[in-house]
Amino acid sequence: MNIKANTEFLNIKETYLFSEVGKRLRVYTEANPGKRLIRMGIGDVTRPLPQIVTDALCKAAMEMGNAETFRGYPPESGYGFLRESIVRYYARSGITLSPDDIFVSDGAKSDIGNLPDILGDNEVIIPDPVYPVYVDSNLMNGRRIRFIEGNIENGFLPLPDGIKEPSVIYLCSPNNPTGAVYDRNGLKAWVDCALETGSLILFDAAYEAFITDDLPKSIYEIEGADKCAIEVCSFSKFAGFTGLRCGWTVVPKGLMAGEVDLWKLWFRRQSTKFNGVSYPVQRAAEAALSDEGIKKCLENVSYYRNNASLLADVFASKGIRFTGGKNSPYIWLECPGGMGSWDFFDFLLNEVQIAGTPGEGFGRCGEGFFRLTGFGSLEDTKEAAERLKKLL
Amino acid sequence: MNIKANTEFLNIKETYLFSEVGKRLRVYTEANPGKRLIRMGIGDVTRPLPQIVTDALCKAAMEMGNAETFRGYPPESGYGFLRESIVRYYARSGITLSPDDIFVSDGAKSDIGNLPDILGDNEVIIPDPVYPVYVDSNLMNGRRIRFIEGNIENGFLPLPDGIKEPSVIYLCSPNNPTGAVYDRNGLKAWVDCALETGSLILFDAAYEAFITDDLPKSIYEIEGADKCAIEVCSFSKFAGFTGLRCGWTVVPKGLMAGEVDLWKLWFRRQSTKFNGVSYPVQRAAEAALSDEGIKKCLENVSYYRNNASLLADVFASKGIRFTGGKNSPYIWLECPGGMGSWDFFDFLLNEVQIAGTPGEGFGRCGEGFFRLTGFGSLEDTKEAAERLKKLL
Repeated sequence: MNIKANTEFLNIKETYLFSEVGKRLRVYTEANPGKRLIRMGIGDVTRPLPQIVTDALCKAAMEMGNAETFRGYPPESGYGFLRESIVRYYARSGITLSPDDIFVSDGAKSDIGNLPDILGDNEVIIPDPVYPVYVDSNLMNGRRIRFIEGNIENGFLPLPDGIKEPSVIYLCSPNNPTGAVYDRNGLKAWVDCALETGSLILFDAAYEAFITDDLPKSIYEIEGADKCAIEVCSFSKFAGFTGLRCGWTVVPKGLMAGEVDLWKLWFRRQSTKFNGVSYPVQRAAEAALSDEGIKKCLENVSYYRNNASLLADVFASKGIRFTGGKNSPYIWLECPGGMGSWDFFDFLLNEVQIAGTPGEGFGRCGEGFFRLTGFGSLEDTKEAAERLKKLL
Repeated sequence: MNIKANTEFLNIKETYLFSEVGKRLRVYTEANPGKRLIRMGIGDVTRPLPQIVTDALCKAAMEMGNAETFRGYPPESGYGFLRESIVRYYARSGITLSPDDIFVSDGAKSDIGNLPDILGDNEVIIPDPVYPVYVDSNLMNGRRIRFIEGNIENGFLPLPDGIKEPSVIYLCSPNNPTGAVYDRNGLKAWVDCALETGSLILFDAAYEAFITDDLPKSIYEIEGADKCAIEVCSFSKFAGFTGLRCGWTVVPKGLMAGEVDLWKLWFRRQSTKFNGVSYPVQRAAEAALSDEGIKKCLENVSYYRNNASLLADVFASKGIRFTGGKNSPYIWLECPGGMGSWDFFDFLLNEVQIAGTPGEGFGRCGEGFFRLTGFGSLEDTKEAAERLKKLL
């Protein structure tokens, strides 16, 4: 065909990270059939869904099989029952939202990827290391990206620096991949910068449920954020919904970009290019946000967080610098002895049969760092901690 | 904020169609509490899901509650079991596809809305009257749209006319809103035009299951279509999944726009901005595509189609010109006596308490036409047919 494709896609570099990781693991396990590999690179939940959630799924499925209770197209922004449950969930953190501010979606990744649809050609500011979707979804739209550096000195929590023009600023806290969490002063610095420069913050709160210390779970805990921030959140990590697919985005009603109402643009985008979330999944999400559901879901979150802390203790005892390991399922460590990310990957694999993720896969600033996660089983994590203690 | 919004959104006109319809119905029913209104404007399925489908949903929900069978992130393009079921479904129409050609999604509307993401600035050709998503999703990207006229003379099945430059061509057959269905010669004319001009056809097959006559259910029944067409299809109408959310898009592997591989672009788009379809929903879709599932789903399709034919018989007996009424849930009729769409709406409402959809809501060429659907109950449809017989 002779039609024009969107050639901006050609500016996106293929990420070989996970395929290269997979390849090296295959090669090793084939060469060493006797050795037991422990996978600590997992970025996905592994615990089963609480029964209160699966019961809600089944009940809704049965409703769909009955003429009296069958439901067709869902509301594009989500059923009222779920949007109200989400509003109540925010109220637990002292945040007041209206159901109108909530847009239920099939997951945070979709919303993060689609939000650039409603934005013009602004400078985009993204911390490095980073969840690659922030970068790629903007490159697809031909946006100008400026990376700001996360490093061991700023604890991988960069603060506003040299931002003059109105920009679109991506923040993720608790952070993937570093596990670092902004405190109120840190987020306040960003909100103040956004208000001063007329910038928009896109805040990714997907890991908020892992926070146990007194740290902000939502950007809306910071005064003024409702005038400058959109927040994306998810049931994936909190409730183990990575396989069920449900998340939400908060666009405060009346959030204006100049004369343009971004709430109306997002509503128009979603009602034109999206058709709502599966009814049984919305009922499952509602169940996860019930008092009993939250209790059960947080038991799984604690399980992962405890795994992460077991690994953190090892690195702390060895004087290896890291972020995360608390308020997060992730541990982000400095490769010992100045090793490169891939050298350390091979080192851990060959010496103690532990698989992790090389930090350079998350951006230039990830070079020399390494990510381990608490999403494995407690047994494997304990075994991995023992092996690391001996090795390091 | 001073950031720039995507101002292309401001070029999209608000559609007041369904809100205006709703308003007039409210006003009438409040003024006439005694009269029984029959709603024949429904564009959504109403029959419950077959038990084989709801059982599959429940079974998958239970798997998600069990540590041994829990599943996390689904593959972005869909599970192999479902993509293979879809390939077998096409094989029933004599079409050979590979599972690699299939991208499972949360619905045809999402795919139709998102496909412009991978395309450049081409002229977009859209038949009028039209499903508004084709128009709005292109206006959001600032594309140039040329409408081609559907009318009573061409049976609302316009053929290629004056297309010189490589273009993106939207086709929907069976058509929403007109119910008209292209025969092989008609689709061949479009495929030949696309091959000659280097154009891309975006074919919307969402209503294919309604076809009983010997008419093409897929663009890929036409030779050469695999070199110039992307097809979007859905479980919504075939299996009643409007509330469950599942569809698919076929991008033949190696479909090239100049030097650019559109399959790779769509894969990249989906793997970056989408995270796959809910596992229980994919199991439900697999069940709908089993031999027993297809049989049960087609019973519902026949129910709607039979309703549409009851209405078609009335208009045929009155010498009122229409399209659809077979191979489709829709009937698209010429308003009698040269009435305007809204005049006829008010006429039906006031005289026989039947609610439909004014054709002008689907584009300029819809003025003077009216859409009724077979998605209501058999009882209501029979009653409506009787009322129309007396009135017209």
